[in-house]
Amino acid sequence: MRAEILSIGTEILLGHITDTNAPYLAHHLSEVGLDVFFISQVGDNQGRVAETLRRAWDRAEVIITTGGLGPTEDDVTREAICELLGETPTVDETYLAELKALFMRRVGHFPPSNIKQAWIIPSATILPNPIGTAPGWYVQRDGHIIISMPGVPREMKKMWEEQALPRLRGVSGATLVTHILRVAGLGESPVEERLGELIHSTNPTVATYAKSDAVDVRISAKAATKEEAEALLAPVEEQARRVLGRHVFGEGGATLQGVVADLLRQRQWQLATMESCTGGLLASYITDQPGSSDYMRGGIISYATDVKTAMGVPQEIVEQHGVISDATALAMARAVRDKLGAHVGLGTTGVAGPDSQEGKPVGEVHIAVVSPKGEVARQLNLRGERIEIKHRSALAALDLLRLHLLGEV
Amino acid sequence: MRAEILSIGTEILLGHITDTNAPYLAHHLSEVGLDVFFISQVGDNQGRVAETLRRAWDRAEVIITTGGLGPTEDDVTREAICELLGETPTVDETYLAELKALFMRRVGHFPPSNIKQAWIIPSATILPNPIGTAPGWYVQRDGHIIISMPGVPREMKKMWEEQALPRLRGVSGATLVTHILRVAGLGESPVEERLGELIHSTNPTVATYAKSDAVDVRISAKAATKEEAEALLAPVEEQARRVLGRHVFGEGGATLQGVVADLLRQRQWQLATMESCTGGLLASYITDQPGSSDYMRGGIISYATDVKTAMGVPQEIVEQHGVISDATALAMARAVRDKLGAHVGLGTTGVAGPDSQEGKPVGEVHIAVVSPKGEVARQLNLRGERIEIKHRSALAALDLLRLHLLGEV
Repeated sequence: MRAEILSIGTEILLGHITDTNAPYLAHHLSEVGLDVFFISQVGDNQGRVAETLRRAWDRAEVIITTGGLGPTEDDVTREAICELLGETPTVDETYLAELKALFMRRVGHFPPSNIKQAWIIPSATILPNPIGTAPGWYVQRDGHIIISMPGVPREMKKMWEEQALPRLRGVSGATLVTHILRVAGLGESPVEERLGELIHSTNPTVATYAKSDAVDVRISAKAATKEEAEALLAPVEEQARRVLGRHVFGEGGATLQGVVADLLRQRQWQLATMESCTGGLLASYITDQPGSSDYMRGGIISYATDVKTAMGVPQEIVEQHGVISDATALAMARAVRDKLGAHVGLGTTGVAGPDSQEGKPVGEVHIAVVSPKGEVARQLNLRGERIEIKHRSALAALDLLRLHLLGEV
Repeated sequence: MRAEILSIGTEILLGHITDTNAPYLAHHLSEVGLDVFFISQVGDNQGRVAETLRRAWDRAEVIITTGGLGPTEDDVTREAICELLGETPTVDETYLAELKALFMRRVGHFPPSNIKQAWIIPSATILPNPIGTAPGWYVQRDGHIIISMPGVPREMKKMWEEQALPRLRGVSGATLVTHILRVAGLGESPVEERLGELIHSTNPTVATYAKSDAVDVRISAKAATKEEAEALLAPVEEQARRVLGRHVFGEGGATLQGVVADLLRQRQWQLATMESCTGGLLASYITDQPGSSDYMRGGIISYATDVKTAMGVPQEIVEQHGVISDATALAMARAVRDKLGAHVGLGTTGVAGPDSQEGKPVGEVHIAVVSPKGEVARQLNLRGERIEIKHRSALAALDLLRLHLLGEV
């Protein structure tokens, strides 16, 4: 069964943004057994969107569109679908009431232009958007499915995973079962090297994906039933877990901060951070986790060196070892643990760039954990720009904390 | 004059790679005044590539392809162009000799499959590839131009900039000039409402784009020369700036943290943050800015309430007004300013969710700035999930700081 992807937005055609929705969707469509032969990008022009939809309708059974669902006159996806199907939109009064309530809460008034976001046609169902204002459409007619979602990647992905993908599963006939192992502390190439011949297997398939917070190993088996697919998958997953060892920190949608949350809760330990080069990002990742106030006392961002010493880092450690050192990272972790009354302290210090510091190169970062179990520090030598170095340092600190809480380091 | 972009490669359709060539080319094409109405991605299949080329030929004068120029059977771009034009390839003996020499130097032998990389047809000129083995084609026939380049971005970009782009300049006879105004504190719909009729103007065009950190207003004018385009653009930009007022915080690639950095540097003021609901994200955004150690003293993340009071927030303010209040946000800003010895203090407190707190709803956030110029606090009523609320609260705090430093609040 064939699927076609259509990304809508003049900003894509002007090269102002890169279409990351299409590769995301292409990847998922192939996983549910749909073949993608064409992807198109087209601007905010009703005639051209309708022309592209019509061609997709002729050569695929499933059409996925993103973009063009906003409230403005530029947003023409709904209009183009109406043109393609020859259907006339009406306003869904129930959804309109919800939309109005939403706008009143957020901005105190309801712009009349937004009424079209409550449009509906006979062949379509509204897909609610829990994190934005543009709802999607799920259209079924004449053996075809059109799924229209917003262009904002965050909103699209949530709608896709929670509402669109579940409806598509089973459409293709075969059952695909996918397990994802999440891997920390190894890059994509080393993960592939460890997996070796597994990468070339066909059913299940094994593939690696570099995500922003981890490397995902995705193992997918296809069979007539879920049970058969699981049976094909099990021995391969076991082998992958064996070669990746402690680097596997979770499955599916697991995050390092979520895994660390569970480990801290098991011990009823409280956490505190002192950050220099990560500048608050480590604490921000920790507090991204719902319920983190259960175990997160807080943190100190000691950007200026004298803030470090004022907050309890001994002057002599800084003088003897330098700010960019394991010793200072450990002293920071100890200081914040005492200062904020936590069981566990985390420290980060390093050179995020663009300039070197204390003669240490950009990307030299030291992270440390201090807990009732003991102390551990690590030096990282990272590459990339400032924001990337902050990000990778914060992830490495979370992973060091995970391994420490597991008794591995 | 119209241009169309075609990216060729099955790995794009499987979602294994993101097509970054198309946005790069789209951006350059619009800059030389060519209109891009369609972009397509198609797999390594001669029939489908030829079909897509034929359609592009019908609706554009310039066609740019990337990918499918390698030596393998999968690489079918040349074959598809031959099919489209009805021309038969011959081997360019001069280029073949160069290619053979290149291979002998690099790998010691010449794989016979690579002979097709020396193919030529009557309408084409070879575009040499100085950093790879796959040459490109520059095809001219019947008022159309086809430029075929390798898919490897590094090779494509070099070939594009050095060989293709110089040939295209002047082809369209027009120059496009774009100015971008970056807008904070207003959503996309209110920005459009303020712009009113400007949105419908055709030259210059005015369009809004919701980015993660701001709304962009993009004003583009097309004319024979850069000067004429600038002259068309100026009055429209002036009008847009007038209706958007202080919400315009910068141009082009400006960021709120960059604008705030300049304002703080002008006054030689030092900054410190005390964050509750944003959990370190505000300080992280501030320290994303290179050189932020010039003005950023550091911050405190007072996630637990008793950390707030231990760090200088008066107990009676918390008791009287509650943690989620303007009064506590102001007290946090004052406390961290004193504690870390800064000129300016920023405070954030609120309910990031998923649970309400003190009977206050998820999304109620209070932000405050305290400086030698005075004090200001604002209540936000945000919607969305935890991570979105953190993000929008941190941006709002940066914008409040900007307006305060400008003397607006």
